[in-house]
Amino acid sequence: MKNIKNTSVVENKVPPKRRDFLKDGVKSLSVTAIGAMAGTKAFDTNAEESSIGQNLPSWSTSPGKPLRGYGQPSGYEEATKRVIGLTFPGTGGIRTPIEKLEGVITPNGLHFDRSHNGTPDIDPAGHSLYIHGMVAKSLKFSVNDLLKYPMITRQYFIECAGNSGGNIVSPKPVQATAGALHGLISCADWTGIPLSILLNEAGLSKEVTWMLAEGADAPSMSRSIPIRKALDDALIVLFQNGERLRPEQGYPVRLLLPGWEGNTNVKWLTSLKLSNSPTYTKDETSKYTDPLSNGKALQFTFEMGVKSVITRPSGMMKLDGPGLIQISGIAWSGAGRVSRVEVSFDGGKNWSDSSLEGENNSKSLVRFRHYWHWRGEPALIQSRATDEFGNIQPTREHYKLNAAIDARFHNNTIVTWSVGSDGSVRNSYA
Amino acid sequence: MKNIKNTSVVENKVPPKRRDFLKDGVKSLSVTAIGAMAGTKAFDTNAEESSIGQNLPSWSTSPGKPLRGYGQPSGYEEATKRVIGLTFPGTGGIRTPIEKLEGVITPNGLHFDRSHNGTPDIDPAGHSLYIHGMVAKSLKFSVNDLLKYPMITRQYFIECAGNSGGNIVSPKPVQATAGALHGLISCADWTGIPLSILLNEAGLSKEVTWMLAEGADAPSMSRSIPIRKALDDALIVLFQNGERLRPEQGYPVRLLLPGWEGNTNVKWLTSLKLSNSPTYTKDETSKYTDPLSNGKALQFTFEMGVKSVITRPSGMMKLDGPGLIQISGIAWSGAGRVSRVEVSFDGGKNWSDSSLEGENNSKSLVRFRHYWHWRGEPALIQSRATDEFGNIQPTREHYKLNAAIDARFHNNTIVTWSVGSDGSVRNSYA
Repeated sequence: MKNIKNTSVVENKVPPKRRDFLKDGVKSLSVTAIGAMAGTKAFDTNAEESSIGQNLPSWSTSPGKPLRGYGQPSGYEEATKRVIGLTFPGTGGIRTPIEKLEGVITPNGLHFDRSHNGTPDIDPAGHSLYIHGMVAKSLKFSVNDLLKYPMITRQYFIECAGNSGGNIVSPKPVQATAGALHGLISCADWTGIPLSILLNEAGLSKEVTWMLAEGADAPSMSRSIPIRKALDDALIVLFQNGERLRPEQGYPVRLLLPGWEGNTNVKWLTSLKLSNSPTYTKDETSKYTDPLSNGKALQFTFEMGVKSVITRPSGMMKLDGPGLIQISGIAWSGAGRVSRVEVSFDGGKNWSDSSLEGENNSKSLVRFRHYWHWRGEPALIQSRATDEFGNIQPTREHYKLNAAIDARFHNNTIVTWSVGSDGSVRNSYA
Repeated sequence: MKNIKNTSVVENKVPPKRRDFLKDGVKSLSVTAIGAMAGTKAFDTNAEESSIGQNLPSWSTSPGKPLRGYGQPSGYEEATKRVIGLTFPGTGGIRTPIEKLEGVITPNGLHFDRSHNGTPDIDPAGHSLYIHGMVAKSLKFSVNDLLKYPMITRQYFIECAGNSGGNIVSPKPVQATAGALHGLISCADWTGIPLSILLNEAGLSKEVTWMLAEGADAPSMSRSIPIRKALDDALIVLFQNGERLRPEQGYPVRLLLPGWEGNTNVKWLTSLKLSNSPTYTKDETSKYTDPLSNGKALQFTFEMGVKSVITRPSGMMKLDGPGLIQISGIAWSGAGRVSRVEVSFDGGKNWSDSSLEGENNSKSLVRFRHYWHWRGEPALIQSRATDEFGNIQPTREHYKLNAAIDARFHNNTIVTWSVGSDGSVRNSYA
């Protein structure tokens, strides 16, 4: 720290490759605007140098902590943990703190967890997967058998059908974080066996049209799955972000149906029974249907709708003050790839395109960003995603139009955060 | 479990989309071959059904474990943890168990860790990043300042320059797992600020050619970095696989130089000092150089060479018996994208191409697979990666040709696993 010079600001040159970065989302921001956004200060060289020399922090003057076999987050990140949603009844769901995360991967410790009677502690040596019913040859797989099969790795989101349900059923917007309101969404690299290989080995009867997938948890959570999906992109998953599945995500084996509602991705998978009709289990009749205002209900609404949430800024946050604000959020579609995310700051009157970042995989999350000059006025900030098939996020009013009073599932409506003149960010129905 | 039929095997039809899967690596395997590989058995319906009904496991008959804020692996996966390498001196390194992982993401708890005096426990409120030296304006950033800057997410590997060093310096091959021998390699989605933005804000003098990056750990680990790399794809990283950096990977902020040797990716980053020459610190003079047999040494060997390791089967494993064996491994190159991984089963006399899976990002890991009909004969299995620039993995003999007797860094030579007629897999120099 010897040669620090506290000179005046000079005109900066654009460094090599800067244009490559600009493609990723900063667009027309000037260097000055970026610095102002962060509030970074030039520092007084002499004063800083003497203080640094005299007050080195303890971690720079004493040995650090020893090696450990399995790493954990910093103690200073204690607040980054999963949250029990404020508006979802029961003890069976815990949500990803999406407002504290970046990129699109959800670290395994923070993947949302929805279970119907707690997390079973399964010994893989005592677990089997059966494929039976209308097949030529009933098959039983140990976990060790499955580990020998050909595998592939794909990045997919999983979203609970009940995600964001509170924003539908609560007459007034509940004040909570983005994670507490919309955190039943996570994303991982999943490694597993294409289910078509195993079904092929068992030999499907020509009459097969459905498959009942059942878990080994105490409530035997089970769902009927059309055989077309099972033979398409379904995976029998054994690994999650590189390591074996976590218990809360179905250890030792789960079903993964890319883009389909969370509980069809049956965890602790023990049985796949082929049949020529749905089984109409509890979790596809009394729950996970969409009751309509005319007294009927939509059933087997498998595919999750196109959706987006601004995660920063979001509920319970407070903006430092007027200036350039970085908007960051996640978008996804159960149908395929997100093609566009627009952002509005006036409750949906005007929209402008945000930048989509990175791989933008099909049926995965994509990160979007935008930059907003906030002048201190009250504002309503929203995002609206469109997917490659032209599906677009609806409004809350649109959802309510034909829905029964107690409908709460499959809420992919536009999320609104209100910003007060004091910078406080609140959940709003716009 | 009512309709199980134990009928004879019928001819299977290829299901829809099967060809999509075949592209990913199974190629010409028949359904019968896959089943035989796993040793899956058809099951006796009646016997199984009665036993299932009578002996449900405890996890299917009693409530599971409660919700928890931050998830952890299953207790049955206790053995999946980082390992202290057998051949690397000192207490400062712990390795990724690559033989237990799949895909390309290393979960944060298993990312390798190499530190020079333990893991500092840094309070982000007391940490700053300084940019100073030959700049127009010296800048000081708090962690909160940095969190407001534009960020991007990229997937990159990090490999310690000392990885696989034991296979160079040990006269006889040490018998250990793939992770213990070659596990100073990990891969993550990193989210951070393009360093060019911050350097641009500080304003580089025309004379700047190097930058000294220094950590806040007690030994002040520091490395000289050519400014060309700093302005190219360097990142100031704050997030790792979605969550804030782990302490062992540099919390709260690290430098990331895609494809360059591990310790240039300075952890716990506190200072970037711009200059017109290298600083010649301890870790770029007495260590991390490549001594040659002629008494000279290569210095500043930044870019990690093209490399691959078969992770399954690998050291300390034992094959069940003759049959079809799935070969799975990882490959990478500090120069860019891996274009080809060949596999040999006779110590390099004959080679055949493996399948590369997934995104295959530049300067990231790629998973490769191959299928091997093992007839029970002794074998020497190897993989050999080539990158998009035509760089190819050399042999151990080639490395030794001009290297000093104590050279150990930058070993990207072909890894050989010997397979005995009893199925035992051992580390070998071929």
